[in-house]
Amino acid sequence: MQGQQQQQAYDRGITIFSPDGRLYQVEYAREAVKRGTASIGVRTADGVVLAVDKRVPSPLLEDSSVEKIHKADDHVGIASAGHVADARQLIDFARRQAQVNQLRYGEPIGVEGLTKEITDHIQQYTQVGGARPFGVALIVGGIENGEPRLFETDPSGTPYEWQALAVGADRGELQTYLEDNYDEEADLAGGIALALDALASVNDGSLLPKELGLATVDVETEQFDMYDEERIEAELEENDLLDDGEDDESDEDGEE
Amino acid sequence: MQGQQQQQAYDRGITIFSPDGRLYQVEYAREAVKRGTASIGVRTADGVVLAVDKRVPSPLLEDSSVEKIHKADDHVGIASAGHVADARQLIDFARRQAQVNQLRYGEPIGVEGLTKEITDHIQQYTQVGGARPFGVALIVGGIENGEPRLFETDPSGTPYEWQALAVGADRGELQTYLEDNYDEEADLAGGIALALDALASVNDGSLLPKELGLATVDVETEQFDMYDEERIEAELEENDLLDDGEDDESDEDGEE
Amino acid sequence: MQGQQQQQAYDRGITIFSPDGRLYQVEYAREAVKRGTASIGVRTADGVVLAVDKRVPSPLLEDSSVEKIHKADDHVGIASAGHVADARQLIDFARRQAQVNQLRYGEPIGVEGLTKEITDHIQQYTQVGGARPFGVALIVGGIENGEPRLFETDPSGTPYEWQALAVGADRGELQTYLEDNYDEEADLAGGIALALDALASVNDGSLLPKELGLATVDVETEQFDMYDEERIEAELEENDLLDDGEDDESDEDGEE
Amino acid sequence: MQGQQQQQAYDRGITIFSPDGRLYQVEYAREAVKRGTASIGVRTADGVVLAVDKRVPSPLLEDSSVEKIHKADDHVGIASAGHVADARQLIDFARRQAQVNQLRYGEPIGVEGLTKEITDHIQQYTQVGGARPFGVALIVGGIENGEPRLFETDPSGTPYEWQALAVGADRGELQTYLEDNYDEEADLAGGIALALDALASVNDGSLLPKELGLATVDVETEQFDMYDEERIEAELEENDLLDDGEDDESDEDGEE
Amino acid sequence: MQGQQQQQAYDRGITIFSPDGRLYQVEYAREAVKRGTASIGVRTADGVVLAVDKRVPSPLLEDSSVEKIHKADDHVGIASAGHVADARQLIDFARRQAQVNQLRYGEPIGVEGLTKEITDHIQQYTQVGGARPFGVALIVGGIENGEPRLFETDPSGTPYEWQALAVGADRGELQTYLEDNYDEEADLAGGIALALDALASVNDGSLLPKELGLATVDVETEQFDMYDEERIEAELEENDLLDDGEDDESDEDGEE
Amino acid sequence: MQGQQQQQAYDRGITIFSPDGRLYQVEYAREAVKRGTASIGVRTADGVVLAVDKRVPSPLLEDSSVEKIHKADDHVGIASAGHVADARQLIDFARRQAQVNQLRYGEPIGVEGLTKEITDHIQQYTQVGGARPFGVALIVGGIENGEPRLFETDPSGTPYEWQALAVGADRGELQTYLEDNYDEEADLAGGIALALDALASVNDGSLLPKELGLATVDVETEQFDMYDEERIEAELEENDLLDDGEDDESDEDGEE
Amino acid sequence: MQGQQQQQAYDRGITIFSPDGRLYQVEYAREAVKRGTASIGVRTADGVVLAVDKRVPSPLLEDSSVEKIHKADDHVGIASAGHVADARQLIDFARRQAQVNQLRYGEPIGVEGLTKEITDHIQQYTQVGGARPFGVALIVGGIENGEPRLFETDPSGTPYEWQALAVGADRGELQTYLEDNYDEEADLAGGIALALDALASVNDGSLLPKELGLATVDVETEQFDMYDEERIEAELEENDLLDDGEDDESDEDGEE
Repeated sequence: MQGQQQQQAYDRGITIFSPDGRLYQVEYAREAVKRGTASIGVRTADGVVLAVDKRVPSPLLEDSSVEKIHKADDHVGIASAGHVADARQLIDFARRQAQVNQLRYGEPIGVEGLTKEITDHIQQYTQVGGARPFGVALIVGGIENGEPRLFETDPSGTPYEWQALAVGADRGELQTYLEDNYDEEADLAGGIALALDALASVNDGSLLPKELGLATVDVETEQFDMYDEERIEAELEENDLLDDGEDDESDEDGEE
Repeated sequence: MQGQQQQQAYDRGITIFSPDGRLYQVEYAREAVKRGTASIGVRTADGVVLAVDKRVPSPLLEDSSVEKIHKADDHVGIASAGHVADARQLIDFARRQAQVNQLRYGEPIGVEGLTKEITDHIQQYTQVGGARPFGVALIVGGIENGEPRLFETDPSGTPYEWQALAVGADRGELQTYLEDNYDEEADLAGGIALALDALASVNDGSLLPKELGLATVDVETEQFDMYDEERIEAELEENDLLDDGEDDESDEDGEE
Repeated sequence: MQGQQQQQAYDRGITIFSPDGRLYQVEYAREAVKRGTASIGVRTADGVVLAVDKRVPSPLLEDSSVEKIHKADDHVGIASAGHVADARQLIDFARRQAQVNQLRYGEPIGVEGLTKEITDHIQQYTQVGGARPFGVALIVGGIENGEPRLFETDPSGTPYEWQALAVGADRGELQTYLEDNYDEEADLAGGIALALDALASVNDGSLLPKELGLATVDVETEQFDMYDEERIEAELEENDLLDDGEDDESDEDGEE
Repeated sequence: MQGQQQQQAYDRGITIFSPDGRLYQVEYAREAVKRGTASIGVRTADGVVLAVDKRVPSPLLEDSSVEKIHKADDHVGIASAGHVADARQLIDFARRQAQVNQLRYGEPIGVEGLTKEITDHIQQYTQVGGARPFGVALIVGGIENGEPRLFETDPSGTPYEWQALAVGADRGELQTYLEDNYDEEADLAGGIALALDALASVNDGSLLPKELGLATVDVETEQFDMYDEERIEAELEENDLLDDGEDDESDEDGEE
Repeated sequence: MQGQQQQQAYDRGITIFSPDGRLYQVEYAREAVKRGTASIGVRTADGVVLAVDKRVPSPLLEDSSVEKIHKADDHVGIASAGHVADARQLIDFARRQAQVNQLRYGEPIGVEGLTKEITDHIQQYTQVGGARPFGVALIVGGIENGEPRLFETDPSGTPYEWQALAVGADRGELQTYLEDNYDEEADLAGGIALALDALASVNDGSLLPKELGLATVDVETEQFDMYDEERIEAELEENDLLDDGEDDESDEDGEE
Repeated sequence: MQGQQQQQAYDRGITIFSPDGRLYQVEYAREAVKRGTASIGVRTADGVVLAVDKRVPSPLLEDSSVEKIHKADDHVGIASAGHVADARQLIDFARRQAQVNQLRYGEPIGVEGLTKEITDHIQQYTQVGGARPFGVALIVGGIENGEPRLFETDPSGTPYEWQALAVGADRGELQTYLEDNYDEEADLAGGIALALDALASVNDGSLLPKELGLATVDVETEQFDMYDEERIEAELEENDLLDDGEDDESDEDGEE
Repeated sequence: MQGQQQQQAYDRGITIFSPDGRLYQVEYAREAVKRGTASIGVRTADGVVLAVDKRVPSPLLEDSSVEKIHKADDHVGIASAGHVADARQLIDFARRQAQVNQLRYGEPIGVEGLTKEITDHIQQYTQVGGARPFGVALIVGGIENGEPRLFETDPSGTPYEWQALAVGADRGELQTYLEDNYDEEADLAGGIALALDALASVNDGSLLPKELGLATVDVETEQFDMYDEERIEAELEENDLLDDGEDDESDEDGEE
């Protein structure tokens, strides 16, 4: 009870430090990320894979409108977890940065540079008053100088580079799965398999095409490639993960 | 009681995260939506249908002035549920966006693009201080590239695409009704029937023309078509849903 | 007691949602309206009638200075109930809108358009921080395209169109009286009779000319016509409602 | 005690509505008016009379510096009650308005128009945040189109027109005295007598010249005329109200 | 205890009214004035006298740097009591006003006009948010149109004109002394004697030259004349008030 | 418990003084520094050494992306401890200052001058409202006029110059180790050895290359030189500090 | 306990008056000054002496980087006590004022004028909202018109002129020492001796060169002269005050 009172003291107004040096509003924003369904990124020798779990609360909802993977530029895709409306703001910011870079320097923006533009933007919302932090984590994947790169942005505005990572619900379990099964030498198909296997591992072993998102950027084409439901179904079949189709229960509070 | 105190801590000043990662002001705005009467959108092969329940607190009130369906552009209609005055602001915003698009690109705005302009606008009111979120949900329906499209905007600023949906009072019950009875192959008349049946299902089986709103946008004309009371009465008769006419009780706190 | 504490939490700073989706500051502003004396609007085939009850706390107060009916434009009158000083602000706003319309388009502003300009202005004060809502309701009556129109603006910023309505003290009782006695086919004299009868019904059956305000806009002249005390007395006599003249008790907190 | 807590909730930050629709900061500002000594205005057929009670806390204080009557324009005087420093701000505002009117239209400002400029200015301080309301009431008296006019401005920003009125301490008692003794046909001398009699009625029947202020604007000259101590003494003698001279006790908190 | 809680409610944020119509921040600023040592002003037929008590907390402090009397213009001096740093701001403001007047109108500013410029400036800090009131009272003395004038500004922003007054510590006792001993016909030497006698009356009957400040503006020269320690000592000797010299105890919180 | 309440009072809104003259928000920011892993700076006759401990929470995280050492200019490196996203802001600020200096004066910025630009920037965030302090300490090392210089910036905005220092976790223990073992005459290799020995002393005596960062700026080349994992491993081997490789446990709240 | 609650009420938001007329934030800033080590200023016939105690928390800290004496202009030095980062801001402000004066008037700024520019700047931070007061006291010493001048600025923004003074830790004890031993006729060497004796009196009778700062401005050269460690050691030896060298314990919270 006392701990609760203490916490309440840091919830109001601008983001400030607690006596033990933590930023509660940022930590609460991390909770908003955990409330979203899981997103996974896998880097392979041939390219990067983005795979996401989607919550489709009604069979009448167009599952394609539950956007958790976005094209940021021809050669960069972004998967998100957490507060959907916040994610949309950061994706728009990323796209504008990519366009500006193209216009100003005549060449595509680097994946690392783009990530750091995003995290610097996020950090401002944790230090300057008058707004709350972004309640979302992003996985930024793409090709830079012919190499696949995979980054994470978190609500504090810190960038990390990964071989493979999970954000959102079940992050702990999923990350352990990835660590146990990641193979540096895997090709893109292997990366897809790993991502889908991981998601299936926290979904009773099988997955519904309509509740999945999948995209890749390979080193050869350097093109973001979003998979439609048909191709996702094919991948699930190939990996023996295809669900026979009953719906999840779900809620509707804007986190994915 | 303790839970209540905890909640109160998040009600003041700007919209901030609670320890479990929720935005209470956005959730309370969702409650404002539920306080409004129901609105329904149905997408059919031939076009989209918007149908709304209206509360007419006095027989002397001009029911046409209880506006829950609005023309946003020639080819797009919007139905709302929740805080009426907030809805008017968003409708005005939508109309300006449609005009700007027409002026700038010489062509009508897409239904999806319009929806996302609206949700981005809504999101700003949930992150930046100095204002409260919008207490309203919108159903945006229209024709884009010859195809009927149907979207929802919620108070968090998240866009969703639907085949059929309900917002406002009785959403749960109505959505279940729509899921149980939706037929992908239905024509516009079928869509109207479904929407009216659904509304009747939570109104003792019959409906008053003056307490209903109805509009369509069909793929052929691509024109928003608002039904007057006479045509609504005809539709109700055709569907055996015509009420014989006693008033609802009602209150007047500005939600519809 | 607990409910009281809960309410207090929503009273401070900007207007925000309560957990059940209400805007307390707007609801309290509605209480300010109820604290004012009653105002009535009646639409007849020939024109609109505005009639108001006035509180004259001292025989030395010039009753004409208790302004509850205002000319907004040649063809539009506005009656108010609630916080007088707030009403004056909205009336000034309405007059400026009418002038701007005349200048910009060379024609008088429509009654509906004017009402919606006012309600949009009111809504801003309920969403953006740094100011309180307006504690006043207006009845906007006039002629548009040869037709009499009668609107209400409430503190949430919602516009309604009416055949006949009451705002301010005793609204419930008065509205019921209007509903029971309204005759769609009545002429202007009939409308005046209905309005005065209604006010008399909550004032022991008779009225004092100096504590009344009366104005009409008829379809023929399309001119706002304010009645002076003599004409009001004549109307009361004709309708057998003339009081013999003792004062009400009253207070002075700026609501009318 | 509970009522007290409830009230405290509305004292902080900007002026907002209480659950029963009142603006506490405005009501507290009215208390500041009551803390000031009384001011009286009387309208007669020949002109207006302003008479004020002054608190002179020390015999060494120049009573002329306790300013409660001010010349706003050649033809308009203003008496105040309440927070002196606030009164000075409004008087300055009134003088600037009078000058602007003269410059812009080449004619003196009307008494009613001037009063409404002042009340609109006052209203802003009760609705927009970042400042407190004015803790003062004004009596504005002058000649307009050859007619004497007498107005009041209160802390809510409401204008009233009076035949005779009192503001400040003992308002209730004084207003009753005025109502009982006001004679519409009285000339200016009669108006002065009424005002002095009223003030004497709450001061043990007699008055000290140095603790009084007196001014008139008559219809003939249309000139504001401030009485000096000698003329005031003559008026008191003529009306048998001259005190023999011991001081009041007094305090010094800036209300008059 | 309850009264204390009630008071606390009015201490935060901007200056607002208490339920009984008082401005606590202004009253607390008056307390800051009382925390300062006394300052006295005396008007005589020949000119004005400013005399101040100074606290010199250490023999190593240059008593001349404890500034309580300031030259505002050639013909105007100002003595202060209360928060020293606030006094400096107002003195700077007064000097700028005097210079502006000289530049704009080619003549020295009047003493009354200057005082009212200062009080209007002070008032703003009691009504508009974002700053606290000034914790200082000023005595403004000088010659205007050949006449000596003596004014006071208090923390509410009210101007008063005096024959003789005291502000700061022991105000009550000192003002009574002045009232008992003031002689309208006294010359400048008599005014100096009265001021020093008064200060001595609350300092065990004698005064230290270094803990005094003394200045005059006489009608003949119309020049502000600051007395140095030697001349002060001569005045004390002439008036049999010279102390033999042990130090006061003192504190250092910036009030004089 | 009481102490805790007292502290809470200083956590809200802007950074203000506590009754004992401390700035709690700055002290809490120091706690954020302590939550980060250790960073060490050592100045030798030949140049400066920066060595940092890194937390790598998953084997799939690219340890190179956990940036704790940054190049600020060709001749200046900066190591950080604390909130990573805040560090990135200060590094960006430092780089811009270095570029501006180069452009404006045509020569590289001095290490001391750069440090003071950073600390002045930090101080602003501790005094002016609307933002929180930076939760990070920096070690700024480089060559100025041929001499190695080593500085610290702390969250209060105070600059210090050091021969050798540690910031972040275990600062006390590490600083004591440095004080006991620092040799003024050591060369760069000796400086590297001291830094690694110190870090090993709080890590069970050995270190993992991937959880270390190492960089130098030597007086000869005046070039910032970042060590890759291979060179770090070589240094560890040379100093008998190479770990055999099990992971630390770790958390992920954005402090390093 | 009650006193404590009362105090807490004045800690939040902007600097405001307490019921007894005190500015708590300014008083707390004075506590921040006391938390810093002592600084001393002595004025002699030949010039001014600035001497400061420094806290060197580690033998590896460059004691020269603990800056408590600063050159403000060729002829003016400033010693500080309190919050170091705040001192740096005021020193920068002072240097800019000195430069501006030189540029604008072609002559060096006066010591008194400079001091008052600084105190006016400090005062603003105690009256206007949005920032906290400066937690530092300065001793400003220099030559003006051939005369040595010595001033103090305190956190309220009050300027004082002194013959000799101490600020910071042990102020009371040190000031008494200075009062007991100050000799107006002493030369610069005597002034140095007095300052060092005083510091030694609160440091067990001896001093470490590295934990001291010393500077002079003499009337002949009118040049600020900072003593290095060697010259300080010589002065200590000459005055028999040289310590044999063990370290103080110390903390690191940014006050000096």
